[in-house]
Amino acid sequence: MTDCKFANDAEVIAFARDHSGVFPAGAHLGVEEIGDGNINFVYRVFSDDGTSVIIKQALHYIRIIGEGWPLSQDRIRIEAEALQQEAAYCPDLVPRVYHFDAARSAIVMEDIGAYENLRHALIARARLPLLAEHLGRFAADTLFHTSDLYLDAHRKKELVGRFINPDLCKITEDLFFLDPYCDHERNNINPLLWDEAEALWQDEPLKLEVARLKYRFLTCAEALLHGDLHSGSVFACAEGTKVIDPEFAYFGPIGFDVGSVLGNLLLNYAGQAQLPGTEAERGAYQDWLLETVAGFWNTFAGRFAELMEAKTQDPSLNLALYREAYLADILADTIGYAGTEMIRRTLGLAHVADLESIEDPQRRAQAESRVLSLGRAMIMQRGEIGSIDALIAFVRGH
Amino acid sequence: MTDCKFANDAEVIAFARDHSGVFPAGAHLGVEEIGDGNINFVYRVFSDDGTSVIIKQALHYIRIIGEGWPLSQDRIRIEAEALQQEAAYCPDLVPRVYHFDAARSAIVMEDIGAYENLRHALIARARLPLLAEHLGRFAADTLFHTSDLYLDAHRKKELVGRFINPDLCKITEDLFFLDPYCDHERNNINPLLWDEAEALWQDEPLKLEVARLKYRFLTCAEALLHGDLHSGSVFACAEGTKVIDPEFAYFGPIGFDVGSVLGNLLLNYAGQAQLPGTEAERGAYQDWLLETVAGFWNTFAGRFAELMEAKTQDPSLNLALYREAYLADILADTIGYAGTEMIRRTLGLAHVADLESIEDPQRRAQAESRVLSLGRAMIMQRGEIGSIDALIAFVRGH
Repeated sequence: MTDCKFANDAEVIAFARDHSGVFPAGAHLGVEEIGDGNINFVYRVFSDDGTSVIIKQALHYIRIIGEGWPLSQDRIRIEAEALQQEAAYCPDLVPRVYHFDAARSAIVMEDIGAYENLRHALIARARLPLLAEHLGRFAADTLFHTSDLYLDAHRKKELVGRFINPDLCKITEDLFFLDPYCDHERNNINPLLWDEAEALWQDEPLKLEVARLKYRFLTCAEALLHGDLHSGSVFACAEGTKVIDPEFAYFGPIGFDVGSVLGNLLLNYAGQAQLPGTEAERGAYQDWLLETVAGFWNTFAGRFAELMEAKTQDPSLNLALYREAYLADILADTIGYAGTEMIRRTLGLAHVADLESIEDPQRRAQAESRVLSLGRAMIMQRGEIGSIDALIAFVRGH
Repeated sequence: MTDCKFANDAEVIAFARDHSGVFPAGAHLGVEEIGDGNINFVYRVFSDDGTSVIIKQALHYIRIIGEGWPLSQDRIRIEAEALQQEAAYCPDLVPRVYHFDAARSAIVMEDIGAYENLRHALIARARLPLLAEHLGRFAADTLFHTSDLYLDAHRKKELVGRFINPDLCKITEDLFFLDPYCDHERNNINPLLWDEAEALWQDEPLKLEVARLKYRFLTCAEALLHGDLHSGSVFACAEGTKVIDPEFAYFGPIGFDVGSVLGNLLLNYAGQAQLPGTEAERGAYQDWLLETVAGFWNTFAGRFAELMEAKTQDPSLNLALYREAYLADILADTIGYAGTEMIRRTLGLAHVADLESIEDPQRRAQAESRVLSLGRAMIMQRGEIGSIDALIAFVRGH
């Protein structure tokens, strides 16, 4: 575990100059640390003419905690390689990687500062016309092309080996699937929600279904996931979308990525009911969110089905009946994993601004309670809902 | 790809003397090549006093075909490491490894010549009183202790990486799940069965279920499988059982190993009806086979449930409801994979002596036809059968 941290601004600037290829020789460069994440160091290096790059560096511990919480630096190699995999199929939807430096544990990449963090955009009720199509295409293209449907049997297994990611997977295994279902010290629970949390910890049928979903997360190496596809990993503007931060990438169940997107849209949906504004404003934005859920799924499923039909390499998996059954299974997983995302963002360690920005604790508890109840119902009924329209009716009626 | 083949008997003897530790200094040793498998070279080295060892060597091609069919020598490392994994929990049920030599691609191991190949024993209607208990315990102990139920999250993923085994997995992916379901040149079909084969190739509902089972074989990294647990990989005598040849080992669905045992017992069951002897002799032995099926499953499931309750490390997976649901899922997989083993041994490349030793082609076709029909029904109804007793009634009634 080498400490390869940049000693000063001059080192960061020199590194960016040497490895990005975007700055004219002799340009005067500045640097700022912009890390608003918790885990890594992130720098922006810029020149007078507005050109800029991002440097993301992973040390052998978690940034906001320090050496007390060690974390493998291999995560930055995984992030760099995952970005390259994603760029092979969706070059417009990920930041460009200029350089990965193993010795420095650092990636030099495109600055996407013109895009806004999707979570903040949703809280501000922005309507992003391209979002559903872009995220649906991102999920379909990255997941299909890293699955056994498309990859050669040897290549798939080689990639599975390259993306074994135990440290980051363990975070998800614990924070998604363990902590919220017991009285864990890492949990962060609104005191007004305590009774509901205690009831949930006794809910054996729910815990059975969560065990099944956790086991699939542990064992089901379907495709190379982004692994952390919540609203904070998406940057968007009217013209485009960028998906960042795939350091949790590993081969897992496709529905986990798709469900993360869906769960985050529904977290915002539940939060909107308690955020400022008129009822008409809230309702109209909630309608837009549900249209976005449908548009996202329909783009994903339509594109995935097309890819299956056109590009599935293995004739024993290229059957019309199997394509239908496959997408039905993915929808069930998606609804289930969306439910686990919703519950863990309410009871677990890491909350979301969509709910935390509701200032009145009583109103926040109302939104959280709805999230909990909807998340539970989605987990329990994930195999029966059957279509995205049925899911939307289910959400509206809940 | 080095050719590390032993040049002559003297080299084999010297290797055995140096690496086994079982021969007294100065003992006079002899050697014979005993490879009755198709893929590797196998030697027996013995001294005058009856002491002996086996040397198994994997070259970079398939023994009976030659350099025209290359195969990774990594398979012998995988076999050696899988034998060591198995020995950690079932030392009495596997041959002891004295030495693994990477440079020679060779394992020096215990000679189990006193045990008989299970397939031959079953054809000869031997009743092996310990077989069901031993195979059930082998499956439960090796599979539980390499699953996410028992292993630490980091250790499991490290082992998944060590046992990535693309060459040998590809053989199964093709021979089990592709060839028998289409008119493939590798198939080996009794001309009297041709109409049934052609009907099967058009059977879309069956092909859907086989696609699901294949996809689970490709993606479902539940536990370290033996991977080739047919009757020819088991050696038995009245006193004990040895499971050999885990070169197909990889992390896959537990039901594949359990179903391989079950499918092979049922292949023999179907063959018995057409083998010589009185009706009473056949019937009595078929009864013993079905008792063995039940004893095997009940030992496996009972032991696995005990291990789950006592040793599951992850509290979110250690729930009474989950244990039940888990074993129900394994039973469904087991029945399905047993069905695929039965079909591929009838239509595919590699047949079994349980059926091939029926000399009359018409009678052989009758047995094969029953295997095909039963295999298909098991695949189609694997989720509904529900218990081992129901499976046995299903087999009897079919």
